Amino acid sequence: MKPYTEMTAEELTAELASLKAQYKKEQALGLHLDMSRGKPCKEQLDLSMGMMDVLNSDSDLTCEDGTDCRNYGALTGIQEARELLGDMMENNPKDIIIYGNSSLNVMFDTISRAWTHGVMGETPWGKLPEVKFLCPVPGYDRHFAITGYFGIKMIPVMMTPTGPDMDTVEKLVSEDETIKGIWCVPKYSNPQGISYSDETVRRFARLKPAARDFRIFWDNAYGVHHLYDDRQDYLIEILAECKRAGNPDLVYKFSSTSKITFPGSGIAAVATSPNNMEDFLSHLRHQTIGHDKVNQLRHVRFFGDIAGLVEHMRRHADIIRPKFEAVEEIFDRELSELGIGSWTKPLGGYFIMFDSLPGCAKDIVARAKKAGVILTSAGATWPYGKDPNDTNIRIAPTYPSLQDLKKAMEIFTLCVKISSAKKLLAEKKA
Amino acid sequence: MKPYTEMTAEELTAELASLKAQYKKEQALGLHLDMSRGKPCKEQLDLSMGMMDVLNSDSDLTCEDGTDCRNYGALTGIQEARELLGDMMENNPKDIIIYGNSSLNVMFDTISRAWTHGVMGETPWGKLPEVKFLCPVPGYDRHFAITGYFGIKMIPVMMTPTGPDMDTVEKLVSEDETIKGIWCVPKYSNPQGISYSDETVRRFARLKPAARDFRIFWDNAYGVHHLYDDRQDYLIEILAECKRAGNPDLVYKFSSTSKITFPGSGIAAVATSPNNMEDFLSHLRHQTIGHDKVNQLRHVRFFGDIAGLVEHMRRHADIIRPKFEAVEEIFDRELSELGIGSWTKPLGGYFIMFDSLPGCAKDIVARAKKAGVILTSAGATWPYGKDPNDTNIRIAPTYPSLQDLKKAMEIFTLCVKISSAKKLLAEKKA
Repeated sequence: MKPYTEMTAEELTAELASLKAQYKKEQALGLHLDMSRGKPCKEQLDLSMGMMDVLNSDSDLTCEDGTDCRNYGALTGIQEARELLGDMMENNPKDIIIYGNSSLNVMFDTISRAWTHGVMGETPWGKLPEVKFLCPVPGYDRHFAITGYFGIKMIPVMMTPTGPDMDTVEKLVSEDETIKGIWCVPKYSNPQGISYSDETVRRFARLKPAARDFRIFWDNAYGVHHLYDDRQDYLIEILAECKRAGNPDLVYKFSSTSKITFPGSGIAAVATSPNNMEDFLSHLRHQTIGHDKVNQLRHVRFFGDIAGLVEHMRRHADIIRPKFEAVEEIFDRELSELGIGSWTKPLGGYFIMFDSLPGCAKDIVARAKKAGVILTSAGATWPYGKDPNDTNIRIAPTYPSLQDLKKAMEIFTLCVKISSAKKLLAEKKA
Repeated sequence: MKPYTEMTAEELTAELASLKAQYKKEQALGLHLDMSRGKPCKEQLDLSMGMMDVLNSDSDLTCEDGTDCRNYGALTGIQEARELLGDMMENNPKDIIIYGNSSLNVMFDTISRAWTHGVMGETPWGKLPEVKFLCPVPGYDRHFAITGYFGIKMIPVMMTPTGPDMDTVEKLVSEDETIKGIWCVPKYSNPQGISYSDETVRRFARLKPAARDFRIFWDNAYGVHHLYDDRQDYLIEILAECKRAGNPDLVYKFSSTSKITFPGSGIAAVATSPNNMEDFLSHLRHQTIGHDKVNQLRHVRFFGDIAGLVEHMRRHADIIRPKFEAVEEIFDRELSELGIGSWTKPLGGYFIMFDSLPGCAKDIVARAKKAGVILTSAGATWPYGKDPNDTNIRIAPTYPSLQDLKKAMEIFTLCVKISSAKKLLAEKKA
């Protein structure tokens, strides 16, 4: 088919009429398909049901070091869990704290602690006239919600296919000491699904921040979430790279099993330098006596070791790979010739990113909603919910069934076509 | 035996020599008995092992309202858990938020939120020149650690056998708008094991604080932790009483199953007014996507209902009642005639409070430690760890075996005698 951008006003008008007729038919189906969030589907959750069997009333809930997991204590987590997550995160177990069920909660606490008590003896952020964070965009809305909640000024930095625009990051961070952090999802990023290049990671580790209390918030949420066994992104391990670069305290690294076992019933972890860990613990010991050690032990007994966890992730991939492929197939089929949008083709993670013609994203999402397809709000991938060009839409393929997903993506591409044709037509008339 | 207070210097000297000989013998045993914290013992933990069986790989982890407990969501907790904890806390399920594994963490977060964002639109505490909390003393060290961590000035208010000295509480709270809260363990208090009288609760509900953002931090940690079936303390339910008094937003009520099932792997909860709940949730939704719903469901399925939970608490009581009785018996036998100390006789909770002669508590605890008995630090029951009269010692009878506990209490009473005799002798010589 002819690209929309090359169509005459007459051709666009005719195409729009046909698209609208098709849309009416879809609307009449009265669908309700929610793909607003990156949630695992039922079949993925079923993969972890064996975790309900590994502990029973005859089990010995004692750790190798004698800790009774049922009682108070073990603020940094049980050793077995630190080892398993150490293997998963490629970090030394001694650099790891195992938390509760939510890495987002740990990130919130980390900002909150910096706000009330400061980072390693520096002035609490809450006592400074201004605090800023760099926010690679498009990015993760829940990250931006945390910094937004604390009144931290969020500065967008454009993402490139190799990670954030590092020229800008380096310049801003080295010049402005009110910049205290940067949000990163370095592997299979939310929402692009891309991974930071070796050069990007190396440049992160070599940052020379004006602020001594600047930290990289390295949310490695999708570290083991590959879609393929033979094609995988590799990411340089940031803690080790920072250490080699003589910047050991520069980074806080977060991870969890939320999208490995059960979201909400997994275990979260931080890996960081000894200095940062001491800082974390000086706060944490006032905050709680310890996290859920029985659940830590349950995870360890379920996976056995990192090879067991990797095998488990292959089963996840087998379920969600066809969904990612279906989205790409439909996008290719419906949109590739029309010049009205572009999208990513990730090798892992939970999202595909779609970019429409400028000024169309909100309209596409609203139109899809009226036909029963709920997408992540347009704008959500930018701080303050404001996408300046109104192009970015996050696609979350994992939760719906393959059949529902296909239907949803057909409706979505239809909405992309309608919005684009309308926009192009309006431009011609103007 | 003759009270030490009536002994002559010669009699005290002779007694002291005999006590010291006895102490040397105890020391030679090389014991190591840790009774520093209020921890359940192994037999208590064994009572909840059935909780490991109620969910298995064949279980349906879906709530009555269709929520899949394995996936994200349900910020206020699953309905079934709100109902169970509603029955336990004597509150309406709709007034309850179910949290993660630690009520202490919820209290910390509550202070932290007030610090960074204020209570219901009032000025954040962190922006005020001074913030004060009332601390009924003797009280719970971990409460004081939280307020101390935020630099909140802690004002001790004496506990009486019916609760905090309410004349002082009413006066201070109504006069000083920098007083923003008070820590309370209203039932089977830590460390006294006493419960607030009806009059005390009524006066709490009728407080007229100068500060609009004053809140009562009502830590009902031992609400169902009775030692006896026929003799139990009753506590007026504070939320209902505040509502009747026209003060619905005055209180935050905390509870958990930490000492019901497994400490560290239980579920915590807050009950509060609709206005306060809205305030809590406006923070919480930036903080996490939700708490561990599988563990909530596990608790609900294990207990079935409140009757099941109460029956479970009877089994706890059967294990720890003999321990409380043993402490009382040894105190009665060893100390009742000597006039050198007093102690409480609680009907529930986790602690017995001991008061020595002025200036002896630190010495007693240090002396016990040298004979292998680790007690809660003297002073821990006061803000900043400073007991002005150096009399107060918290006894935690639950964790050791009955045999170890008896040995520890014999050593403890021996140390009480030595410290007291030395003190009285020194006074005579002065």
